[in-house]
Amino acid sequence: MNEAAKTLEGWYCLHDFRAIDWTTWKMTSNEERQAAIQEFLSLVDKWNGVQSEKNGSHALYTIVGQKADFMMMILRPTLEELNEIENEFNKSKLAEYTVPVYSYVSIVELSNYLPSDQDPYQSPEILARLYPILPKAKHVCFYPMDKRRQGNDNWYMLPMEDRRNMMRSHGMIGRQYAGKVRQVITGSVGLDDYEWGVTLFSDEALQFKKLVYEMRFDEVSARYGEFGAFYIGNLLEEDQVAKLLHVN
Amino acid sequence: MNEAAKTLEGWYCLHDFRAIDWTTWKMTSNEERQAAIQEFLSLVDKWNGVQSEKNGSHALYTIVGQKADFMMMILRPTLEELNEIENEFNKSKLAEYTVPVYSYVSIVELSNYLPSDQDPYQSPEILARLYPILPKAKHVCFYPMDKRRQGNDNWYMLPMEDRRNMMRSHGMIGRQYAGKVRQVITGSVGLDDYEWGVTLFSDEALQFKKLVYEMRFDEVSARYGEFGAFYIGNLLEEDQVAKLLHVN
Amino acid sequence: MNEAAKTLEGWYCLHDFRAIDWTTWKMTSNEERQAAIQEFLSLVDKWNGVQSEKNGSHALYTIVGQKADFMMMILRPTLEELNEIENEFNKSKLAEYTVPVYSYVSIVELSNYLPSDQDPYQSPEILARLYPILPKAKHVCFYPMDKRRQGNDNWYMLPMEDRRNMMRSHGMIGRQYAGKVRQVITGSVGLDDYEWGVTLFSDEALQFKKLVYEMRFDEVSARYGEFGAFYIGNLLEEDQVAKLLHVN
Amino acid sequence: MNEAAKTLEGWYCLHDFRAIDWTTWKMTSNEERQAAIQEFLSLVDKWNGVQSEKNGSHALYTIVGQKADFMMMILRPTLEELNEIENEFNKSKLAEYTVPVYSYVSIVELSNYLPSDQDPYQSPEILARLYPILPKAKHVCFYPMDKRRQGNDNWYMLPMEDRRNMMRSHGMIGRQYAGKVRQVITGSVGLDDYEWGVTLFSDEALQFKKLVYEMRFDEVSARYGEFGAFYIGNLLEEDQVAKLLHVN
Amino acid sequence: MNEAAKTLEGWYCLHDFRAIDWTTWKMTSNEERQAAIQEFLSLVDKWNGVQSEKNGSHALYTIVGQKADFMMMILRPTLEELNEIENEFNKSKLAEYTVPVYSYVSIVELSNYLPSDQDPYQSPEILARLYPILPKAKHVCFYPMDKRRQGNDNWYMLPMEDRRNMMRSHGMIGRQYAGKVRQVITGSVGLDDYEWGVTLFSDEALQFKKLVYEMRFDEVSARYGEFGAFYIGNLLEEDQVAKLLHVN
Repeated sequence: MNEAAKTLEGWYCLHDFRAIDWTTWKMTSNEERQAAIQEFLSLVDKWNGVQSEKNGSHALYTIVGQKADFMMMILRPTLEELNEIENEFNKSKLAEYTVPVYSYVSIVELSNYLPSDQDPYQSPEILARLYPILPKAKHVCFYPMDKRRQGNDNWYMLPMEDRRNMMRSHGMIGRQYAGKVRQVITGSVGLDDYEWGVTLFSDEALQFKKLVYEMRFDEVSARYGEFGAFYIGNLLEEDQVAKLLHVN
Repeated sequence: MNEAAKTLEGWYCLHDFRAIDWTTWKMTSNEERQAAIQEFLSLVDKWNGVQSEKNGSHALYTIVGQKADFMMMILRPTLEELNEIENEFNKSKLAEYTVPVYSYVSIVELSNYLPSDQDPYQSPEILARLYPILPKAKHVCFYPMDKRRQGNDNWYMLPMEDRRNMMRSHGMIGRQYAGKVRQVITGSVGLDDYEWGVTLFSDEALQFKKLVYEMRFDEVSARYGEFGAFYIGNLLEEDQVAKLLHVN
Repeated sequence: MNEAAKTLEGWYCLHDFRAIDWTTWKMTSNEERQAAIQEFLSLVDKWNGVQSEKNGSHALYTIVGQKADFMMMILRPTLEELNEIENEFNKSKLAEYTVPVYSYVSIVELSNYLPSDQDPYQSPEILARLYPILPKAKHVCFYPMDKRRQGNDNWYMLPMEDRRNMMRSHGMIGRQYAGKVRQVITGSVGLDDYEWGVTLFSDEALQFKKLVYEMRFDEVSARYGEFGAFYIGNLLEEDQVAKLLHVN
Repeated sequence: MNEAAKTLEGWYCLHDFRAIDWTTWKMTSNEERQAAIQEFLSLVDKWNGVQSEKNGSHALYTIVGQKADFMMMILRPTLEELNEIENEFNKSKLAEYTVPVYSYVSIVELSNYLPSDQDPYQSPEILARLYPILPKAKHVCFYPMDKRRQGNDNWYMLPMEDRRNMMRSHGMIGRQYAGKVRQVITGSVGLDDYEWGVTLFSDEALQFKKLVYEMRFDEVSARYGEFGAFYIGNLLEEDQVAKLLHVN
Repeated sequence: MNEAAKTLEGWYCLHDFRAIDWTTWKMTSNEERQAAIQEFLSLVDKWNGVQSEKNGSHALYTIVGQKADFMMMILRPTLEELNEIENEFNKSKLAEYTVPVYSYVSIVELSNYLPSDQDPYQSPEILARLYPILPKAKHVCFYPMDKRRQGNDNWYMLPMEDRRNMMRSHGMIGRQYAGKVRQVITGSVGLDDYEWGVTLFSDEALQFKKLVYEMRFDEVSARYGEFGAFYIGNLLEEDQVAKLLHVN
């Protein structure tokens, strides 16, 4: 039996992607549309309250291309809270004009492939990573991924030492992007179809491409990475919601 | 011809996942909605009666994320009974406001990779596992899976002895989660698209992640496991149904 | 050039799976529903007439789970007849309340991997298998399948002798289920997406699981079988059609 | 750099598969239905005119099973003409009652794996194959395919000589079906998702199965063939269109 | 850690494919249709203005076959601009009659597998390729692609030198098509599901087939290319928009 990596877990996470049904949205009266927008902003306001209490966090981004129109990323201590938020949105007026197109359930995760000569739960830095307040970066990039288990390229059959070394080298690349790209890793083994969700935040979208491309030449990704769909988007500030949804 | 594992079978099982069509549900009168909820609770009440007679069992869970809104897991002695329950739900008022999104047909299964020096059908413990009363744990995790048959990683070409040893080691991991996670294995060879359905119950959702992740490093999963979609959810008690479905 | 197995062909076969759109069915008047049921039973009656003339055969089964609500399996001497039956159903009133969810086009097939020291078309037993009257067994199991052509596991590159030996051993397993499971093999190379359709009939659904599972350890399946979706169901007698479709 | 096979190209080709929305078709007045049928037959008549001028060709077939109800195969000198025909059909009344379910864009292709000691464009036989008038055979079989590029089974890495030898042997099988099956190969590299479309015509549908099955044991198919979906159908003569579309 | 290719990036790019919902389009009044066409042409006119200022570029093509009816390819300096254009189209009247069927997000990319003895950003030729004004060629061909990472065919594990040599040979083929086919490569690592988008422009559609087919025999494609769907189409000049959308 191979040794599993030890992991630390923080808040549960829901990525919820929605497309807007513009045709029915336009058919609605302006009054109804304003009510829908206000109700949605009230929801976000409630989430802001939770965030300022440090009981969770969230991020709103539009998505470029047809995969979705916007994405809500929500962090909370329990799955029940995520479920309630999801249901509250689903029952809202705005939801009547959106189509659910993709979602991802996971939990903030740090792995111990890094040195373990400290009690991680005593480290304010680690606590800040397990219970992160999401940044208001200009751009977001989300993708789910697996470690490959295929023929001779089977991550889960590698000795712990090899995995640790490869992850360390992988981390090196990430560190070169410190200050440019902020990364939130969420684990989803047993929670959703892939093993991890990767959410990247940056003020410069090109950094996502550079980071992911550079990493792809690293053995961990080159031989062992299996990637799902990529979602790329722009920050949706609350005061831009009305503009996004404005129709004549 | 390779020796097949002997299996014991109990009740047939239907996992039935549904999404709620919130828009049409909201358009319905409050009166109709109450009638739909009452009718559904009557169905569940009938199932409760069957369960107290030990002629079957069932579980209700909400599902987190867009894959579904709730899941009904039903155990019965025959496929005809499962079919009747499914049709009765489909003909109900609530069903008009739900969309079928996934289902799984299987049968409770125990395998004899474990020692066989007893008559299993004389064992009350084994009978309790073949005809289980499902627990009211706070969380559920369901996923279907196959054993891989690919190049050098072909489970079905391995000698019985190797399979038995690997399954024994695999069982060891599961046993460490005794008291934390309850597992119901249902076999679906010839009944549905994967070979097994795994349903895990726990009061702590994080245990699903820990268990499935730890097992993934075990050779049985690492080399031979092929996993379908994962569904994760929260217990839906009958007295919470009205709240889940409440809209203004 | 490798030697192809010789095959014998009988009737063409259409498996036609339908889901019922319960919501619109319930919205229809009782009168219309009765008319739709009567019209459908007239169709079946016509098929019964063809069957008693031994010009074809058919079977009706409900399907458990969300994949479909019922399945019509139709055998006829020509593709034109299958097409007409399909169109006649599609034009019927009941069809307005069903959704086509899957179909399979194939032809009853026997292969000569078995000894060939007789003229098969003189054998009443073989003719009965090529032009079978489908049984009214309590349960049905249908799945399409391919023989694998992948790396070292390439069925079509094996010498005829090896294929014949493996098929003989495979047939042995099937023979142990004689009297319990009746199997109709239909070939679909050039007719549909998989190479064969397998339709199993039994009065005991558990026998499907036991048969398919046992065969999966046989080299033919273990190394060379690629399986499509599995459909499992219960006999739908004509006098149960009204009950299945009864709504308040 | 490996030597590419030289190819000859003729007319562009569109395979356009449609399902009929029988429910809305039945809801339409008989008058409208007759108008839709007449308009469609006028379109076909226009195509007949083009065909008699040898400026293109076409074929109409019903499709057996749920994949489609009918298929239009159109050959023309340019992509612009195919696009116009497609749009003209889409704007027709009949199109309002059909659902596009699959299409394939390609170009008639002959490959020079055969001896090249002549100028092919001087050969009337070759011109007749590049600009074929499609036969009115009783049955059609269409499927797209790729040559495999996978591990040791990589067609595009084989020396030209090996590919030529294998294609020659493959052609031998086809020649045994001369007079029984007519084959039109269309190339789709750069035009659609697979590399070739294969359209077979025969008065006896069983010949498709025999031909494709026999070829599957030939190394070109066994090791190097990747097949898409198979569509099988019956000739739809113009004077049968009204019957096909007749509803009470 | 393997050396990543250095890349140069230019404008962001959105490929936006739409199908026309002809049935609802025909049900609309002629007045509304004209208004929708005029509004769309105003949008294109605005894009023309941006293009003449060299702040972006765009191309309009119809698509042959059922995958889409037309495609808009848009180049802009930022993702925010692409998002705005997409939303402006989505809010337009014409969009009410179209269905989004596929989109692709990427960024114009040049790679440095070619010699690097110059400062690329000083080269007018390179700047013209990073910020290209799209040609009005008669035909377009778009497909996304990956470099394979599979067993022994793992592009990202190859030494830089090998990759450079193979890319050079690959470029040779492309160069033979200079003047016949213009190619715009856009990188999409971290931006969309494949690693690159390839957009080819030519006045002769057959050149796409010849180019892609010839390249497929080159090791880079033969062993390392994984291709997505292919979209092929015809130039849609602004003065043809009304004709394309004309219905009686």
